[in-house]
Amino acid sequence: MKTVRVGLCGLGTVGGGTFKLLAANEAEIADRAGCHVTVGRVGARRDRPDCPTGGVPVSRELMDVATDPDVDILVELIGGTDTALKLVRTAIANGKHVVTANKALIAEHGNTLFAEAAEAGVSICYEAAVAGGIPIIKALREGLAANRVQWLAGIINGTGNFILSEMRDKGREFADVLAEAQALGYAEADPSFDVDGTDAAHKLVILAAIAFGMPLEFDKVYTEGISAIETVDVDYAEELGYRIKHLGIARMAEKGIELRVHPTLVPEKRLLANVNGVKNAVLVEGDAVGPTLYYGAGAGAEPTASAVVADIVDLARNLALGQAPAVPELGVRTTAIARQPILAIEEVETAWYLRMTAEDKPGVLSEVASICSRAGVSIEALIQKEPAEGETRVPVIILTNRTREEELNQVAREIEALESIAGSITRIRMESLDG
Amino acid sequence: MKTVRVGLCGLGTVGGGTFKLLAANEAEIADRAGCHVTVGRVGARRDRPDCPTGGVPVSRELMDVATDPDVDILVELIGGTDTALKLVRTAIANGKHVVTANKALIAEHGNTLFAEAAEAGVSICYEAAVAGGIPIIKALREGLAANRVQWLAGIINGTGNFILSEMRDKGREFADVLAEAQALGYAEADPSFDVDGTDAAHKLVILAAIAFGMPLEFDKVYTEGISAIETVDVDYAEELGYRIKHLGIARMAEKGIELRVHPTLVPEKRLLANVNGVKNAVLVEGDAVGPTLYYGAGAGAEPTASAVVADIVDLARNLALGQAPAVPELGVRTTAIARQPILAIEEVETAWYLRMTAEDKPGVLSEVASICSRAGVSIEALIQKEPAEGETRVPVIILTNRTREEELNQVAREIEALESIAGSITRIRMESLDG
Repeated sequence: MKTVRVGLCGLGTVGGGTFKLLAANEAEIADRAGCHVTVGRVGARRDRPDCPTGGVPVSRELMDVATDPDVDILVELIGGTDTALKLVRTAIANGKHVVTANKALIAEHGNTLFAEAAEAGVSICYEAAVAGGIPIIKALREGLAANRVQWLAGIINGTGNFILSEMRDKGREFADVLAEAQALGYAEADPSFDVDGTDAAHKLVILAAIAFGMPLEFDKVYTEGISAIETVDVDYAEELGYRIKHLGIARMAEKGIELRVHPTLVPEKRLLANVNGVKNAVLVEGDAVGPTLYYGAGAGAEPTASAVVADIVDLARNLALGQAPAVPELGVRTTAIARQPILAIEEVETAWYLRMTAEDKPGVLSEVASICSRAGVSIEALIQKEPAEGETRVPVIILTNRTREEELNQVAREIEALESIAGSITRIRMESLDG
Repeated sequence: MKTVRVGLCGLGTVGGGTFKLLAANEAEIADRAGCHVTVGRVGARRDRPDCPTGGVPVSRELMDVATDPDVDILVELIGGTDTALKLVRTAIANGKHVVTANKALIAEHGNTLFAEAAEAGVSICYEAAVAGGIPIIKALREGLAANRVQWLAGIINGTGNFILSEMRDKGREFADVLAEAQALGYAEADPSFDVDGTDAAHKLVILAAIAFGMPLEFDKVYTEGISAIETVDVDYAEELGYRIKHLGIARMAEKGIELRVHPTLVPEKRLLANVNGVKNAVLVEGDAVGPTLYYGAGAGAEPTASAVVADIVDLARNLALGQAPAVPELGVRTTAIARQPILAIEEVETAWYLRMTAEDKPGVLSEVASICSRAGVSIEALIQKEPAEGETRVPVIILTNRTREEELNQVAREIEALESIAGSITRIRMESLDG
């Protein structure tokens, strides 16, 4: 049997996990790949005593791995977008196939890298970059290849989902759960990418590029984090039959593509509403297949290594036969990738959850309702709570029908200008997610 | 661009759907496959006025399609295992790749067909044979290729799931819902394969062969249908926090492989418990990735056509490059396929739901409990209902811990022999499905 040699750069959580998984399931992997898969060389910028590499030579200089003539596949697991970019480009220039788990790298530099790889006749595989161990890239690029994707919606950041799940299950506050997520190692020491939606936006733009056959346009994603979500909103949502999830949504709308990451009320009966803790899930609506959903671990050493090694097996299966991988990076031949208009968020239509603080006196609701009515916004549900002891103000919660964001902004401004409404309105988008 | 020619046999529900889908998304499919994909010839044994084929020649004699030198891929959508077997063998002998949605054909004749295909240097693709539009074959064979699969459990018959969902949601009786399923076209005029578990067993044996790298052994699947499930059991399960689902389960146990299809109590919080109506879902536990779940439409013209066309695109991507498909039928090279011991059902360990009818008098529960205790079966939950007006007997429901079936049989016999217990015990297996 032939041997395919991997050059593994990075021995951190995912790199170490990948090294161990290739060793642990070596026989199964060989039976599936049709060839031996071995790590021929490791690149690590510092000592990793927790991941002994046996007899495999370790280079401090990563570029040596990318230029090693004995390496067939360069696996980039160092993260970041500076050295990683240089490393991947060097590997491509040296005729190596590349496997990476680096969502930022693909989201921000994928267009260039994919073009360079095509030029060099090599493949870049990145299953592990989105939703950890869930084979969602493969599902979109191959499993659903017969479909025009209508939309997709995903829980694609485990830390954010853990925080929202805990807030709902245990009535805890955002900051409190975030601190625990950091202690548990789910969130980074600097959790801003998890919490502000940047990480989800990186993943969303990758999913959307495949779904709609368009270039990666990370700077066009509308991104809103979860740090403003209050426990009281989680509770009112529950009362109305909804759960709040931080979703990445891409939709082929009439006038262009919607690309947005934001907290979203989802009906509690939907499977996505029942994906809890650090788990990820992506719901994809295809024109032929209808809705399909993919669920699993979105992070962690072993699940992410599972996706990295699946990519290695994909490549090795072809290398064993002396032939080229047949699936292009974005699922379509390069000349078919077409720029699409991306809708500004003001153009996007969703239903809305609105929470406001109103004077507890007659006529207030009627004022609010008439502002909505004049703007053509219909109220699907309304809760007015009893005032707390000694309070003259009450929370009012409204669910609207689907409304263009620009119109909703105008309605919100008019309501906020009412004398009987205190402060600003808390606004959360809603999606029915029915196929 | 090259053109790949499909010979499409069968113009029924799935065949018609496939013909239409190839036409509707022709441009997208070409961009993804890197070649034109056209139906060059159709085989249909009778007129199908509902599926006009335009200028494509239609043969009454199916074998003419399988021997046509202009056909690259033979798509078998005629169903059954007689003519279909002959058709597929003829296509293989004539050097055609094959795509089929025929689970019975693969489950019962896959071993022979795969060997013949390997000999002839062609591929047999069968994504549509299991769980309709869900790309579960691809997930198992490729997406999870780094894992040793520990177990999988699936709702893989839509009709059965529709019946159980309706019984739970609306308190309806089995026979009543079955009649509706037939009227809606979900169930066949002869629904026995759906209801007795044969259809699920066909699909399970295919999933298990891939998961465990073993030959297809359809005759070794333990199969129990849903026709004995009563609404009262659905209700008691609900009261205890469970839902009853008809699952196909394959598990790598210590002494061999479990292969079983039967009604199963599942904790209501599990995603599988919340898969309702005609939808399918498969939960797969891999040693690296942990639990992953795949959900979608398990039947219907368009979802099944989505899977058929995905297989065609897989083949066409390789044919466009003039090379061979790189993924073997069962995911491992032929010489690695190894027979595994299949456990007899008596050897299988599960938790149990037991419902019995007891005299409403002191001491009965104690007798039952002491039989369980002597056999080492522990009672995890027990409900004794109030007697109905004028009744002297009451229903008693017991949930047990995990117990080998042979031991449970003995316990059940002893309980049934008690004077204070009337009739036989209703027994349903339980699975926690935690990863």
